[in-house]
Amino acid sequence: MNQSEHTNCRIAVDAMGGDFAPRNAVLGALMAAAENKNIDLYLVGRTSDIKKIISSGEFNITDDHIIQADEVIGMGESPANSIKAKPDSSIVRGANLVKEKKADAFVSAGNTGAMMTASTLIMGRIPGVGRPTIGAEMPSIGRICYFYDVGASKDSKPQHLLEYAVMGSIFAKEMGGVENPSIGLLSMGEEESKGNELTLAAYKLLKESDLNFIGNVEGRDILTGKADVIVCDGFIGNIIIKFGESIPALLKHLLKITAKKSFSDKIKIGLAQGALRKSLKSLDYQEHGGVPLLGVNGISIIGHGSSTEKAIKNMVNRAYEMHRNNLVEKIRNSISKYIRN
Amino acid sequence: MNQSEHTNCRIAVDAMGGDFAPRNAVLGALMAAAENKNIDLYLVGRTSDIKKIISSGEFNITDDHIIQADEVIGMGESPANSIKAKPDSSIVRGANLVKEKKADAFVSAGNTGAMMTASTLIMGRIPGVGRPTIGAEMPSIGRICYFYDVGASKDSKPQHLLEYAVMGSIFAKEMGGVENPSIGLLSMGEEESKGNELTLAAYKLLKESDLNFIGNVEGRDILTGKADVIVCDGFIGNIIIKFGESIPALLKHLLKITAKKSFSDKIKIGLAQGALRKSLKSLDYQEHGGVPLLGVNGISIIGHGSSTEKAIKNMVNRAYEMHRNNLVEKIRNSISKYIRN
Repeated sequence: MNQSEHTNCRIAVDAMGGDFAPRNAVLGALMAAAENKNIDLYLVGRTSDIKKIISSGEFNITDDHIIQADEVIGMGESPANSIKAKPDSSIVRGANLVKEKKADAFVSAGNTGAMMTASTLIMGRIPGVGRPTIGAEMPSIGRICYFYDVGASKDSKPQHLLEYAVMGSIFAKEMGGVENPSIGLLSMGEEESKGNELTLAAYKLLKESDLNFIGNVEGRDILTGKADVIVCDGFIGNIIIKFGESIPALLKHLLKITAKKSFSDKIKIGLAQGALRKSLKSLDYQEHGGVPLLGVNGISIIGHGSSTEKAIKNMVNRAYEMHRNNLVEKIRNSISKYIRN
Repeated sequence: MNQSEHTNCRIAVDAMGGDFAPRNAVLGALMAAAENKNIDLYLVGRTSDIKKIISSGEFNITDDHIIQADEVIGMGESPANSIKAKPDSSIVRGANLVKEKKADAFVSAGNTGAMMTASTLIMGRIPGVGRPTIGAEMPSIGRICYFYDVGASKDSKPQHLLEYAVMGSIFAKEMGGVENPSIGLLSMGEEESKGNELTLAAYKLLKESDLNFIGNVEGRDILTGKADVIVCDGFIGNIIIKFGESIPALLKHLLKITAKKSFSDKIKIGLAQGALRKSLKSLDYQEHGGVPLLGVNGISIIGHGSSTEKAIKNMVNRAYEMHRNNLVEKIRNSISKYIRN
């Protein structure tokens, strides 16, 4: 593996990651590389499996861009244990490529917990980051809401919520083009006095900071676009995004009940089905192409297990954009201002 | 006010509570009483205001059923302070009627926090209940999901989650007719090992209890009907139900975008609008008619500020059903088994 040009971005992709690996991972990654000459792609996994998939597709890659990894961490395996037990797994190898500066980014649709743990332990945290964070981009009214943390953390401390706000703010600005992103603290009331122990303390830290903090926001404000960035503990964020993911199924169920009651409604709902499906698409995780783990020393993008080829391609493109925007460097420079002892 | 027959239910209604008080509160309450001869209705508030509304409607009430209260607690007032500062407010008077056994239930669409505080402090907690709880009935697929706590608590302790499960279970059985309700603990993963400090400890208490505990459930399981009763801390529950309430608005927005892109989709969406509105109705808070505060010594039903006449009527009917089912007595008898020192 050669040190590539500065304009290039060396992206390692976990060929074994995801429910449809190696097929979707390999073909999606090759598609991204074919469309963007600045992407220097490396596929990490079992060479023979990877080559079989490559030969079935239309794009190729040279042998020195296939990084052999004998093992695979399964979707159900315990993150911490599997990282230790499988040092030659594609996830551990990929994270090491970034650590050893042989790759600029690592992308995987494999075991989410293992990917978070490997990225955090192997790449290491940026100094000043207590907890790395993953965010979701919510399809809010009038804008995207960058929502942190959605599952990398639990039992966060107030300082961690401040860190999520700093990192989310940089992401919204650099990747979303949002100037001076507004930041809301997710709570159970708008007034400063409303909240639990965690948010009451986090409120003070955010208020004292130089961030564009607009105060508490409520559950309804996530989708109505009240703030560019909304922060909360990962336990809550995780529950919220999973709740959100289940909405299309409930809606389908409610429409079915309405259709059963009235034949004319049944016809109308049938006609509008396609339009409804299109409208709900933006609630679909996969469309966005994975979520970056912010706060580690390198670019780490984690995709949904059921990622399609297109989703993998989007993940690789996102890794490229993060590299082009020097996101890790910008977080490093900014977060140091907020370190408390 | 006479001690009524056992079959009767004396329900006090806050005539001054809600954004459209006294009109909606008075007319809705009178409608409920007119439809059910077992309801012995008392209206609490400014007599002259109440009489003015009564004279505009079709139902009447005798003067001894109007309980004068000079003051009104505004929707924005601080709960704890307003209870102290306004001892002659309709909310404080109503809660006292229950305490003094002059009424079996109190219903208000006024200041939610003041109503919770007044009910808890004046009626008092049932022995063994650390924190009273309010629940939401989620329109899940295939069943109603009784979801506790949605805002009466924050920073709950493990024992409190157990209490919510006990009370929610009784409510689901007695009011929803669910035999041996299944109970899920809201967490960020299904495995017993997944969760935050609170849920890991609550898991043990629930597992050791004789409740029908089915383990952890995730955010997506609230709407998919995985458990009859789901428990969590009120900070999270409050954020979830407010998030849920905002879904129809987001959906409307997403459909508008789809309609803008294609004329044929616009026509189809236009045709299906009525059916869509009907389907989303079950997500609407008001349809259900208020939420009871469980765990206090009496029946206390809290309605949405924007309650319609119909919503108030539903609240009164619900108070009646809770009384008929001896719900407070059943919670008192059951919760004593779970007291820990």
